[in-house]
Amino acid sequence: MAVLFRVRYSDTDQMGTYSSARVLEWFEHGRTEFLREKNLPYALIESRGVFCPVIEAHVCYRGRARYDDLLRMNVSAALCGKARVRFDVTIVHDQTGEPVADGYTIHAFVNSAGKPIRPPNWFTEAFSRGANNTQ
Amino acid sequence: MAVLFRVRYSDTDQMGTYSSARVLEWFEHGRTEFLREKNLPYALIESRGVFCPVIEAHVCYRGRARYDDLLRMNVSAALCGKARVRFDVTIVHDQTGEPVADGYTIHAFVNSAGKPIRPPNWFTEAFSRGANNTQ
Amino acid sequence: MAVLFRVRYSDTDQMGTYSSARVLEWFEHGRTEFLREKNLPYALIESRGVFCPVIEAHVCYRGRARYDDLLRMNVSAALCGKARVRFDVTIVHDQTGEPVADGYTIHAFVNSAGKPIRPPNWFTEAFSRGANNTQ
Amino acid sequence: MAVLFRVRYSDTDQMGTYSSARVLEWFEHGRTEFLREKNLPYALIESRGVFCPVIEAHVCYRGRARYDDLLRMNVSAALCGKARVRFDVTIVHDQTGEPVADGYTIHAFVNSAGKPIRPPNWFTEAFSRGANNTQ
Repeated sequence: MAVLFRVRYSDTDQMGTYSSARVLEWFEHGRTEFLREKNLPYALIESRGVFCPVIEAHVCYRGRARYDDLLRMNVSAALCGKARVRFDVTIVHDQTGEPVADGYTIHAFVNSAGKPIRPPNWFTEAFSRGANNTQ
Repeated sequence: MAVLFRVRYSDTDQMGTYSSARVLEWFEHGRTEFLREKNLPYALIESRGVFCPVIEAHVCYRGRARYDDLLRMNVSAALCGKARVRFDVTIVHDQTGEPVADGYTIHAFVNSAGKPIRPPNWFTEAFSRGANNTQ
Repeated sequence: MAVLFRVRYSDTDQMGTYSSARVLEWFEHGRTEFLREKNLPYALIESRGVFCPVIEAHVCYRGRARYDDLLRMNVSAALCGKARVRFDVTIVHDQTGEPVADGYTIHAFVNSAGKPIRPPNWFTEAFSRGANNTQ
Repeated sequence: MAVLFRVRYSDTDQMGTYSSARVLEWFEHGRTEFLREKNLPYALIESRGVFCPVIEAHVCYRGRARYDDLLRMNVSAALCGKARVRFDVTIVHDQTGEPVADGYTIHAFVNSAGKPIRPPNWFTEAFSRGANNTQ
């Protein structure tokens, strides 16, 4: 699934393009919209006592994006191993398709005490449903 | 009391100076150090179930500060009314004293349920002790 | 004019609501959309060598907003004095209208060398056109 | 070389620990201090028309760190290939040595027009001098 968004002024730094750290906030925004489309809003997941902290993140910075540029973020996801979920993200300029950044994050499942858990059935079922968990 | 700090790259935006929103993060950093000096670390305050959310903030942007500039932040504070605390902050270039930004934040006291409370005695006593609650 | 947006995870802090500094990033986002609607995109303004740095900001924090809450930001603006523009912003919960935060920012006009200037005619004309510069 | 710093309130998110994106700002802060110790302050590098944008970033999140925790960041760096520099960063709790996060960033060299260049001699010489370019 795809998310359109614009580079905010606060996303820029003095190099005149987006700040490297902000890409991880964009990825987070992408995951939020991905899970909403799965009928699994992350706020709902946390309200059920399940948290998905990032345990690994990787970003390749591919090209410039300036303030107010309209970007398109493609997000896909897959369960990996017994207790991990991985989100793959690609960000391009919406008009030209020129690459901006891509990468992935890997998440664990923990309960509200921070203890690792297996993803609950309601999660894996909703997550695996439909064909839209691939780009 | 005074805090020395440097402008981080992530504090800048494409205008080449510090981002307007980051000043409120600097103020927050100043409050943390102010309260630590009062032997009232804010982490301790929260661990006792007392929270001090910002209810009002004001910033005057006085001059440029660039990446890696060494800045000096002066913080003073006073209880105001029955259930408010106000922090006044001035940020200048450490070497020249040239102004960067100043302003204040006003905070309420709430319990862990978010309900307004009076500041506990242990807070007001530690807070009022000594002469260092003025610049 | 109004902008709808959601609280991002990165907008929250450990108090479980939005971070006080992020509100100034939201205001910035609101100004961007306000100026776009005026056919005066801020990126265009800067590309013509005119910059509008914030010289004063004020925020009143009115109520909680949690991760993923849908908020509505109303923005209005007016030229004030000879060389200032002021944006007034009100943020509420979209569904209930419950207040989240409001405030204003005041901006100067400077050229690319950082020297104060009067707003150019093309700015004031586009800015004053139409009735949508009030809420 | 090592940098001591504290988790700021604005570094936290509602999960009660540090925000995943902020780690890349910490890495940036670590690079700044590493280069200063090499007598190669990054502000000086940019003032000479050389920029080192991040082209790749990797973070492994190893453990919790809460507001105001005192952390120690170890930074090492090495030139790699003909026109890349890589920074390796490890962040631990200062008192206990418990891991918080580690990872690396890889940087290109570009001129002020954004065009890739080889690192200038003054950079590679200062960079390679001394034994402190390893942890």
